[in-house]
Amino acid sequence: MSIANEAIRVVAEDGQGEPSRESLLEMLRLLFTVSPEQIADEREGEERITALVREFLLTTNINTDIDGGSLAEKFSDSVIPDNPSEVGAYINQLAESVVAHSTHISSPRFVGHMTSALPYFVRTLGKLLIGMNQNLVKVETAKALSPFERQAVAMMHRLIYQQTDDFYAEHIQRHESTLGIHVSGGTLANVSALWCARNNVLRQTDSFRGIDHDGLPAALIAHGFTGAVIIGSTLIHYSFEKAADLLGLGVKGLIKIPVNNLGQIELPALRQTIAECRAQRLCILTIVGNAGTTETGAIDPLAGLAEIATEARTHFHVDAAWGGPLLFSQHYKSKLAGIEMADSVTIDGHKQLYLPMGSGMVLLRNPDTAAVIEKHARYVVRAGSPDLGCRSLEGSRPGTALFLQAALNIIGRRGYEVLIEESLRKARYLADAVRLRDEFELLTEPEMNILTYRYIPARWRKQAADGQLTTADNQAINRINESLQELQLRSGFSFVSRTNLEHTRYGRGVPIVALRVVLANPTTTEEDIDAVLRDQIMLATCYDY
Amino acid sequence: MSIANEAIRVVAEDGQGEPSRESLLEMLRLLFTVSPEQIADEREGEERITALVREFLLTTNINTDIDGGSLAEKFSDSVIPDNPSEVGAYINQLAESVVAHSTHISSPRFVGHMTSALPYFVRTLGKLLIGMNQNLVKVETAKALSPFERQAVAMMHRLIYQQTDDFYAEHIQRHESTLGIHVSGGTLANVSALWCARNNVLRQTDSFRGIDHDGLPAALIAHGFTGAVIIGSTLIHYSFEKAADLLGLGVKGLIKIPVNNLGQIELPALRQTIAECRAQRLCILTIVGNAGTTETGAIDPLAGLAEIATEARTHFHVDAAWGGPLLFSQHYKSKLAGIEMADSVTIDGHKQLYLPMGSGMVLLRNPDTAAVIEKHARYVVRAGSPDLGCRSLEGSRPGTALFLQAALNIIGRRGYEVLIEESLRKARYLADAVRLRDEFELLTEPEMNILTYRYIPARWRKQAADGQLTTADNQAINRINESLQELQLRSGFSFVSRTNLEHTRYGRGVPIVALRVVLANPTTTEEDIDAVLRDQIMLATCYDY
Repeated sequence: MSIANEAIRVVAEDGQGEPSRESLLEMLRLLFTVSPEQIADEREGEERITALVREFLLTTNINTDIDGGSLAEKFSDSVIPDNPSEVGAYINQLAESVVAHSTHISSPRFVGHMTSALPYFVRTLGKLLIGMNQNLVKVETAKALSPFERQAVAMMHRLIYQQTDDFYAEHIQRHESTLGIHVSGGTLANVSALWCARNNVLRQTDSFRGIDHDGLPAALIAHGFTGAVIIGSTLIHYSFEKAADLLGLGVKGLIKIPVNNLGQIELPALRQTIAECRAQRLCILTIVGNAGTTETGAIDPLAGLAEIATEARTHFHVDAAWGGPLLFSQHYKSKLAGIEMADSVTIDGHKQLYLPMGSGMVLLRNPDTAAVIEKHARYVVRAGSPDLGCRSLEGSRPGTALFLQAALNIIGRRGYEVLIEESLRKARYLADAVRLRDEFELLTEPEMNILTYRYIPARWRKQAADGQLTTADNQAINRINESLQELQLRSGFSFVSRTNLEHTRYGRGVPIVALRVVLANPTTTEEDIDAVLRDQIMLATCYDY
Repeated sequence: MSIANEAIRVVAEDGQGEPSRESLLEMLRLLFTVSPEQIADEREGEERITALVREFLLTTNINTDIDGGSLAEKFSDSVIPDNPSEVGAYINQLAESVVAHSTHISSPRFVGHMTSALPYFVRTLGKLLIGMNQNLVKVETAKALSPFERQAVAMMHRLIYQQTDDFYAEHIQRHESTLGIHVSGGTLANVSALWCARNNVLRQTDSFRGIDHDGLPAALIAHGFTGAVIIGSTLIHYSFEKAADLLGLGVKGLIKIPVNNLGQIELPALRQTIAECRAQRLCILTIVGNAGTTETGAIDPLAGLAEIATEARTHFHVDAAWGGPLLFSQHYKSKLAGIEMADSVTIDGHKQLYLPMGSGMVLLRNPDTAAVIEKHARYVVRAGSPDLGCRSLEGSRPGTALFLQAALNIIGRRGYEVLIEESLRKARYLADAVRLRDEFELLTEPEMNILTYRYIPARWRKQAADGQLTTADNQAINRINESLQELQLRSGFSFVSRTNLEHTRYGRGVPIVALRVVLANPTTTEEDIDAVLRDQIMLATCYDY
């Protein structure tokens, strides 16, 4: 044990009585100041963490088998300890109570959620991020990272909107322009987009100071509306319910249009709803397109939506939190055709850009869109300043755009192209494997790299193949698939998620419990995919026994 | 150069033409998979980053002298490179363009904002956080970190509310209870608190489905109100303007009550405003207390506010983003007396808890307060589930509560007590130094560890001492202090911020430009404080020449 940690240990043990102020000050000096002792301690801690992380990343099992209740009991003390702990001892404790029982979301066989292994350089750069600890709320605390983040956001803007060199030369670093807002995740990106949309539609007039000043009830009256709505499909992400509530519309203000068997919004139904809104003098704040849906990766007809939004003269938002990176692929980017007509687009960094958790963004076609949410303060983000905090929901926030910039440069467009194409290839591999086996029924074709299917116990296979399953049959099969998913998680060798689908061939009356696989992890092989299915068949044996 | 980086370099250079799919796949394998080559590369990168961070932390200068425009030019390319870059080369580029020009916010002489040096273990734990990359939206992707975060939040709850052991035993891990919401920063914490407050006040009745369902306009009608307001002082943080806009009230719905010379809300004026709101049938969603204000660290009379809020039967929120950690000090916690009566309290982790940027929380006295913002989805956060994403503004988010837990344990309550007491001691030291020198005028006494003062050029010193400054004099002195603050930043040796104060002895008619010092960095010494003043006197010499 190094000198500094020894000193901290002494303070800690001392503390049965009262550690002296001097010993506490010395401990704090060792924690906060760069010194030879601190360097030695930091190295010691890092070696331990590096080993822990490596072991964690090499584990393909998903979980230990400890149940949630027993695990929760380990974390049942609510008292902040009076006395300090030594860093190494605390890391050991973390290793045992937290790391050992954490979910191996980067395992090649954890294919149930939108998680993945990450490129190693984000771990390295994480230290730089925390070491510099810049605060992006204002230039005074992020001199280089502020323009650096603007550049990263502009790169993503260009990927979507493909404006001219002149356009980017003008706006990329112009204080008054906002090509996008970097946030902690897709939900805040969607909320930010809808906030902009609402405030632009219900903006200032000659006789009204704007919704940002006078609020929603007054804005509706001033603009002659009876209410305000957001329109998307039934498969819209639940963050839009948060947004509708937060923005004062209530979830009633989120109108959900039915989808077809492919999970895409029905355009005729959308047109009809728009007409009804007009008739009722409901203000349409925005039309939302999915690219793709969280449940099945379905992509709405974006060009069709864009056309309808233009006709309806309303904001068009695309939630491409998941699917945005299709744009890296020359082959597949046409799946998102029309996205370039969106007024705003959400893309998550911590999904298919393979960045650490805590990175999302909304890109804005028109650099003036965010002007309606601008806020100022006397001590920071003064009017006319280059401070990024003027036009963002968050205040103080980290420079995680460092990860985004690094990944765009190190992986490059071609690297991302290969990543996305490989993911789609693996999804087709799984779809084929499911189709080939009697035990399974493919529920949705993989439009991207998300697949849903279910297990059919032997006694129902004939009826299933003949399309003769009754509602009661489906309900029984549902229960079995629910248990199967839970058993697979508990077994700990592999993991898929589950959802209830209402747009299958069985019709809306019979929601079908589906096993859901997301294939985005570059380390997942065909062998891993086979193993996931094999585990399911094995676990299901009991039902067929 | 290691084998892997060499391979990536080849792919990169190759790319003048077309790197082959095979070489790209190999590059991706090296980036995403744990392997001997990757381990060697990661180590190489880490050594470089460790050296960069150490150099950064040892630099006491604030900035390079490059101007914002020239720096922005370095980040003016908006095209995502087609081809990959080698990690080491990219880090070198970062070192030159970003790290070299970043702000040394952890410097002991950067005392202008709420930034500080951090304890070294957060850099170490950052690697674990990113390595495990858990997603706190749901237990399936954060099996151990979900209950672990609940524990950290409960510890902070107990620090404020001091409930019984039985209370914490019941609620700490109970799925339906929410003792607090961990978010990316204070703004989201304030927004979350106000969202809860709004939805609780305008909740469901026998004949109304609740604001979360039917929206604000309908809620006001159902509850018989003509509008809704938030009430705080004129020194309220600007995040409340974001919140008022976002929640549909408009910033008009944020009523600001005047403050006394100490920057505290005037209670008689508050009572009068409440009466007026009642008379106008305006719904008071919440009364906000500051602890302390961003500009001067002033603390509102919280017990008085609590009493008024109880009488008015409204939600009482305390924004203790900055001042919350006073509670660690046996000596100073009485400054926050009354905070335990707040319905919700915001505390920032990345301020006086010394955690990395991206950590805030709102603590909720009543574990049911957040039930009114609950949202669900079929694929995650199903009703009744233990998933933390049910009752949070954010969706997918990182396990940064790891930093909070670690700091509470490693630093301990006594460690934090010493930190806060040292900060307050240094603020008094600076106040004394300012008072002792003719060149300065102390504008606000340090209630906590934030101090405002200004430079008085020689020709005005007599009038200033005699209280004879005219408005024109003050305007001239304002301009000089503005320039002085900018010059000090540009000189790069030390940094204070500035603000405009309206509650000085000069009265509201004459906003006074103040130099603002925040003393929270444990590495700042009395010598550093002297140097900050000496730099200012030196820079100001030209005005007195």
